[in-house]
Amino acid sequence: MDNRPIGLLDSGVGGLTVARELLRQLPNEEIVYIGDTRRAPYGPRSSEQILAFTWDMVNFLLSKNVKMIVMACNTATAVALENVKTKLDIPVIGVILPGASSAIQQTTGKKIGVIATQASVRSGEYPKAIHFKSPSIEVTSLACPKFVPIVESNEMDSTIAEKVVKESLKPLIGKVDTLILGCTHYPLLRTLIQKTMGENVKLIDSGAETVRDISVLLNYFMLNGTEREQINHQFYTTAGVESFQIIAEKWLNIGHINVMHAEIEEGKEL
Amino acid sequence: MDNRPIGLLDSGVGGLTVARELLRQLPNEEIVYIGDTRRAPYGPRSSEQILAFTWDMVNFLLSKNVKMIVMACNTATAVALENVKTKLDIPVIGVILPGASSAIQQTTGKKIGVIATQASVRSGEYPKAIHFKSPSIEVTSLACPKFVPIVESNEMDSTIAEKVVKESLKPLIGKVDTLILGCTHYPLLRTLIQKTMGENVKLIDSGAETVRDISVLLNYFMLNGTEREQINHQFYTTAGVESFQIIAEKWLNIGHINVMHAEIEEGKEL
Repeated sequence: MDNRPIGLLDSGVGGLTVARELLRQLPNEEIVYIGDTRRAPYGPRSSEQILAFTWDMVNFLLSKNVKMIVMACNTATAVALENVKTKLDIPVIGVILPGASSAIQQTTGKKIGVIATQASVRSGEYPKAIHFKSPSIEVTSLACPKFVPIVESNEMDSTIAEKVVKESLKPLIGKVDTLILGCTHYPLLRTLIQKTMGENVKLIDSGAETVRDISVLLNYFMLNGTEREQINHQFYTTAGVESFQIIAEKWLNIGHINVMHAEIEEGKEL
Repeated sequence: MDNRPIGLLDSGVGGLTVARELLRQLPNEEIVYIGDTRRAPYGPRSSEQILAFTWDMVNFLLSKNVKMIVMACNTATAVALENVKTKLDIPVIGVILPGASSAIQQTTGKKIGVIATQASVRSGEYPKAIHFKSPSIEVTSLACPKFVPIVESNEMDSTIAEKVVKESLKPLIGKVDTLILGCTHYPLLRTLIQKTMGENVKLIDSGAETVRDISVLLNYFMLNGTEREQINHQFYTTAGVESFQIIAEKWLNIGHINVMHAEIEEGKEL
């Protein structure tokens, strides 16, 4: 009924983990993806900056005539979701509530860990979402500021990555039964994280959980796309296209991806 | 954030299959259930009548200050969802799209069957929803007008029930790999239906699928209830309370249920 694209935004390449799930679960949907690689990582930035940068990307996506916006970035979701959602007349969805809801369903011992960027941890949005629904759950949050730079520089398979993951997660080992990957970059380190935490810890990919919610909202607002021959996804980055393209092709595994450079207008809210 | 109840409506007791899933999956939510048992079944009625009766129940639920309305009835959904949804400023959700979406995901041979009431089959809403997303799927619809009276009279375990189910489903046997129980009464006959269709046929309980969507919409519209000591579900029927109560207690399995008689005002739209 509505073949306009779905817009995804992220501070960089992390949101590609959401894009991958979206392409897999919703093959009739076209996406426009914008990664603000030039200004990544968002995690150490102030809330004011994150809000302003998120608006820059929202306005870029609106210029592409999107029917829905997915904040495929936990940091942007934590800081900007409510603000953006109330100002737009298209649906806007973030990755925190879907991840929190799924973790509540899956925890067996009521001990949930959340790893995320500094800004996300500071926002307290995950514990808030979990405790709102289930106050008796113990939530331990841990900022892992070194993870995003590893992913953005495509060093996921390096020995440095292994060392950083091991050291960063030490405070959580043995203390949680469920771990929310509270940053869309982190599923790119999933194997290392699982190995470090142990096979019994259930990892929650908040991005993948979000796609189920996107599907429900497409139904609810009657925005589903139709099956069609030609679907042209668009990928934009605010920095150079090359390293973005390498990660996108490796991660999405849908053949050649044409990544374009985006000049986004800064500082203009809706 | 919002402890108002969720309203569920059905032509009779069928929607209790949705209520059961809702109570299981969303323990923080209180429900108000109205079954129009006096005027059930809806299936053989005209669209005009079904629309008017549905509005009677919607108005009853609105008088109970509900935060969301679930049409836990395929017939009402097929005929009245769009009309009611556009006129209310609270979310209104039906059972057809969730069931159709789930069937599309689960079919292995692209042959989906739909069993429903006459009015639902006549509306063509299931094939429409499935073909919109996936035109290459073969959809076979079959009206089973004898099923609802069996359930409403609590004869699910009788030999008559077995005979009726076997004869009714004959046209579908061997022809579908997935079968949508396109009436919320039908899960009460699930064992018989599965036995008749064969173990390899995947049965889709549209009501249970709907509860996942309800959960997403509660998140999206920030309408979740909080964990609290006392939750008082309310069950109403437009006919006598006794047989409703027997089925409700058997099916919901949450101890004593206080069923009340509802006098609903007729013929007053919003």
